[in-house]
Amino acid sequence: GDGKGKSTAAFGMALRAWARGWSVGVYQFVKSPAWRTGEREAFAALDELHRTAGRGGPVAWHVLGAGRTALRATRDVDQAALARAGWDAVRADLAAATHRLLVLDEFAHVLAHGWVDPAEVLDALAGRPGEQHVVITGRRCPPSILDAADLVTDMTKLKHPFDAGARGLAGLEW
Amino acid sequence: GDGKGKSTAAFGMALRAWARGWSVGVYQFVKSPAWRTGEREAFAALDELHRTAGRGGPVAWHVLGAGRTALRATRDVDQAALARAGWDAVRADLAAATHRLLVLDEFAHVLAHGWVDPAEVLDALAGRPGEQHVVITGRRCPPSILDAADLVTDMTKLKHPFDAGARGLAGLEW
Repeated sequence: GDGKGKSTAAFGMALRAWARGWSVGVYQFVKSPAWRTGEREAFAALDELHRTAGRGGPVAWHVLGAGRTALRATRDVDQAALARAGWDAVRADLAAATHRLLVLDEFAHVLAHGWVDPAEVLDALAGRPGEQHVVITGRRCPPSILDAADLVTDMTKLKHPFDAGARGLAGLEW
Repeated sequence: GDGKGKSTAAFGMALRAWARGWSVGVYQFVKSPAWRTGEREAFAALDELHRTAGRGGPVAWHVLGAGRTALRATRDVDQAALARAGWDAVRADLAAATHRLLVLDEFAHVLAHGWVDPAEVLDALAGRPGEQHVVITGRRCPPSILDAADLVTDMTKLKHPFDAGARGLAGLEW
């Protein structure tokens, strides 16, 4: 849906998984100047706590795809090819069972644009070895993916300060 | 709404606020054996990182209200009185501007039960000093609170594994 909280909830789940010592992989399919900066920093700190003090689990954060910054710099960036390369990285990690929780942030956006074929994603998910939980966030997720999911939440905007002209705030939005 | 992700998104926001060095207060109005265990542990680790290494911001976590454990032990626990005492703690922190982000987890539940008067909450919010952001989670939030909010997201369950008989899983649910 169009409501705030989709990616935020996915990162809340990653927090919980970290606390249980799970290996967490975050695949960020959209990038813009401030996008996910705060979350990334927090998970880098948690990953460090894992490595240095044995607390929680390891967290790997992958920045994939192009964002507004890249688009401004090079107009001809091939978003489909970047998304495709990002998905290849996810598929390799799924096949290797690298993580127990995988957060595919804004991947619904990638699927909705037709940059990656949903049927191929379903195949990779159905064939994944071990116990791997996959969270996909974003709007306009294809019905075939929703059908295959165990849990689906629609987040609807009832009110958002941006509608009243407010600007995003570091600490709240990123 | 009845969808998964309400509290999870609030904790995701708290993560972001931590990364920006904000002081975060979490007020947990519902408690049950496994409730928020993972989140609590993760934020304790982040708070420790703040104290020992100057990373992020401080996090104070308050367990308020009664949960299933307490209810089993003492049937006559006065939930309204506990909720009321919890709200008094929040009000005191608001007046003292103790935190920059306050997460009132499941407080909508408290308001919906009439344990705390929404008009009193609106007064305290309207009169809060400084820059304090308040997030309230839960179902059936009174309309007067929704009216006063800058941002409201309705989270609707489209599908949940519990409906198919699945049980909660540490790392995913708590």
